[in-house]
Amino acid sequence: MIRVTVWNEYIHEREFENIRKVYPDGIHGCIRNFLEKEEDMKVRCATLDMPDCGLSEELLCGTDVLIWWGHAAHEKVSDEAAARVAAHVRRGMGLIALHSAHFCKPLKLLLGTSMTLKWKECDRERLFTVAPSHPIAEGIPECFALEKEELYCEYFDIPKPDDIVFEGWYESGAVFRSGVTFTRGNGRMFYFQPGHEEYPTYYEPVIRRIIMNAVRWARPVNRLTAERDNIQITD
Amino acid sequence: MIRVTVWNEYIHEREFENIRKVYPDGIHGCIRNFLEKEEDMKVRCATLDMPDCGLSEELLCGTDVLIWWGHAAHEKVSDEAAARVAAHVRRGMGLIALHSAHFCKPLKLLLGTSMTLKWKECDRERLFTVAPSHPIAEGIPECFALEKEELYCEYFDIPKPDDIVFEGWYESGAVFRSGVTFTRGNGRMFYFQPGHEEYPTYYEPVIRRIIMNAVRWARPVNRLTAERDNIQITD
Amino acid sequence: MIRVTVWNEYIHEREFENIRKVYPDGIHGCIRNFLEKEEDMKVRCATLDMPDCGLSEELLCGTDVLIWWGHAAHEKVSDEAAARVAAHVRRGMGLIALHSAHFCKPLKLLLGTSMTLKWKECDRERLFTVAPSHPIAEGIPECFALEKEELYCEYFDIPKPDDIVFEGWYESGAVFRSGVTFTRGNGRMFYFQPGHEEYPTYYEPVIRRIIMNAVRWARPVNRLTAERDNIQITD
Amino acid sequence: MIRVTVWNEYIHEREFENIRKVYPDGIHGCIRNFLEKEEDMKVRCATLDMPDCGLSEELLCGTDVLIWWGHAAHEKVSDEAAARVAAHVRRGMGLIALHSAHFCKPLKLLLGTSMTLKWKECDRERLFTVAPSHPIAEGIPECFALEKEELYCEYFDIPKPDDIVFEGWYESGAVFRSGVTFTRGNGRMFYFQPGHEEYPTYYEPVIRRIIMNAVRWARPVNRLTAERDNIQITD
Repeated sequence: MIRVTVWNEYIHEREFENIRKVYPDGIHGCIRNFLEKEEDMKVRCATLDMPDCGLSEELLCGTDVLIWWGHAAHEKVSDEAAARVAAHVRRGMGLIALHSAHFCKPLKLLLGTSMTLKWKECDRERLFTVAPSHPIAEGIPECFALEKEELYCEYFDIPKPDDIVFEGWYESGAVFRSGVTFTRGNGRMFYFQPGHEEYPTYYEPVIRRIIMNAVRWARPVNRLTAERDNIQITD
Repeated sequence: MIRVTVWNEYIHEREFENIRKVYPDGIHGCIRNFLEKEEDMKVRCATLDMPDCGLSEELLCGTDVLIWWGHAAHEKVSDEAAARVAAHVRRGMGLIALHSAHFCKPLKLLLGTSMTLKWKECDRERLFTVAPSHPIAEGIPECFALEKEELYCEYFDIPKPDDIVFEGWYESGAVFRSGVTFTRGNGRMFYFQPGHEEYPTYYEPVIRRIIMNAVRWARPVNRLTAERDNIQITD
Repeated sequence: MIRVTVWNEYIHEREFENIRKVYPDGIHGCIRNFLEKEEDMKVRCATLDMPDCGLSEELLCGTDVLIWWGHAAHEKVSDEAAARVAAHVRRGMGLIALHSAHFCKPLKLLLGTSMTLKWKECDRERLFTVAPSHPIAEGIPECFALEKEELYCEYFDIPKPDDIVFEGWYESGAVFRSGVTFTRGNGRMFYFQPGHEEYPTYYEPVIRRIIMNAVRWARPVNRLTAERDNIQITD
Repeated sequence: MIRVTVWNEYIHEREFENIRKVYPDGIHGCIRNFLEKEEDMKVRCATLDMPDCGLSEELLCGTDVLIWWGHAAHEKVSDEAAARVAAHVRRGMGLIALHSAHFCKPLKLLLGTSMTLKWKECDRERLFTVAPSHPIAEGIPECFALEKEELYCEYFDIPKPDDIVFEGWYESGAVFRSGVTFTRGNGRMFYFQPGHEEYPTYYEPVIRRIIMNAVRWARPVNRLTAERDNIQITD
């Protein structure tokens, strides 16, 4: 059983009627709803307004894979909470960062780059599967389209990914490394570009399948009980 | 259910009494015996003396993961059989090449380097897990030893691996990238250094666990029904 | 001084008036003309109609970086010539494969995949620099356009590149890993997508700069006098 | 001309007679002394006791490649200075971290892992060149030895390196990824294990050659005048 926590800052859905109509249970609720139908997953949600920003030590200890959606409130996540998440990833917890979560604090701590990109509001996106042997690509077609998605464009300032699973094409002239994986210590991470809050992206079957695949791929294979420290060898 | 075929040239075990004593059912038989106890695997064997070098189109079509042990008879594998194996790997079949199989024809076709190395007969080896987040490292300690193993030493002429999962240390002064992964097309490969025919390496629980992990990791996630061809896009 | 050989099958330019008008000295002549102005390069040309397919052992021994353009006559390059080129790359010679040379024999031997892709005749291409720290990207803008280029589209069946330096976007809906690097043994390779024979791509200053950068990057750093062999360590 | 700054915390050499005997000008002085003989390098030194920890904005702006040696005083480098260094690396400055600098603040900021390892005081080390096509390996033998070096052992908690150029073997049973490269944004980094302060490692010709190669490899190819920011595309 994979213990999944879907974390969401949960701001846009409460502030804007049009977004609430798309995601009446919040983006986190939408993602929980489709994941919890999977027999090998046990899913809960957490949001920024909870104690410890919804990212307590206890919650993280009981989380195998953390899914993260954030956009307007990256700076409201405390440095302590961000550091806890980063530490748990290094110890083995999986992290799936969606859309504007490219800019979330834990990812910046773990990857060390500016995570900046170019963007534009609405465009048509096509995604191409460029790592067909990767478990996250299982059952995903070679190419699929999203009629409306926020355009993200290179240069995307990430470290060289372990794998580029999906490449994005945008009608008005952009490309983006849309699905990329990283490892840090014992933990695995997947960043996935689609998911602007105004569009029903997380209802798309192909997007759901990718997130399910990513959860299974990112589960810890060797989880540590504490962060690593330098060790002197004594014979 | 993962359909595993254990292929062995099966020569040393028939020629030499001392090797037959270590592997009375052949190396392939020893590997089959421990894999077939796994509930998610269906295992069969094939050997060089069978028709089509034991590597018929039919057998490969029914194989999800091919394990390969060879040493004395690499050149007796026909070019046709080697090309069939390489094509099936590109289409998605997993390939696990053990020990002196670094020099087998399919691996050379798929990797494009000389696959040469330095070697010496008997030494003590320690293996270090250097990719603790990799599924092949699941449950494997950070360091473990093999009291007797053939020494393989760098420079090992392989392409840059996708992952170096295990690094080998040898008492008399050698290091080796002992467990390495590659992808080609839709297929995944794992090369693993231990397994000289004179030593009971494949009876070691840690080695068995690594091979089991590798089988699960190398299963096809998107298998093609034919080799890829250039395709002209017509709107 | 970097000794560069520009190899071209040299067929289209002789057969078709419209192509000869674009490249009156052949594509190889055009590339030689701009490279030979560089103070650190000594450039010569070779073509398929020469003895040994223009790829004699002597020529390769005297070549630091081989540039390859081919399209219509991949099969007319002898297996012996292709094997010689691959061996020299493994020994340290640089190889720059341009446009339809994705399908040339030496690259297939060295990379082990089908090298297939999707294609369509004419489109507008934009290229994005996605590895700004790479020497091949020195002085190249973050994005530049080619008004007319043949469209190449994913899935491009290559092994995972060491670096993706350039990503291509095409107006009619395609993306492509347009500039990618590989190493095999002591040799370095760069594949670069632009360069359809009907368009004046090799007159573009940005394309010329990329090819110059690639020549400098691909020069041998440690060249071997013979191919590697397995070596037994004797104390 | 490559502008090199050799930064050293410069503590051991002042505190301990035996270390001062090995490095009477400090480790930084020793490294400057051999680098400044190179015609294409302009070298200066900086130490922790200078204003701004010796890492002022002005100095970093005038530095193409920063070499870093630190051990006892990682925490005395201010967070501001560490952040400045990391920002300059992302903008294109090269960084060469030596020996116990695996634990320096800028590297931790840039790489995101714990950078922990196992260690033991004195051992014999052999280094193997495992990326013979890499510019840092130019002119370096396939294997060389250091009679006395501090033992560093796996698991070394680094992100997957772009390249592992050197692998270390230690007599008492350890392996280590001793020479590894990373890129972040426009900057390139090389971590190199040898260089314990009690041993004359930086007088070894092969070690000097590696550091010279690394300086040339790490020079900026595209330097930014400011850190990147998210950019909205407006047509």
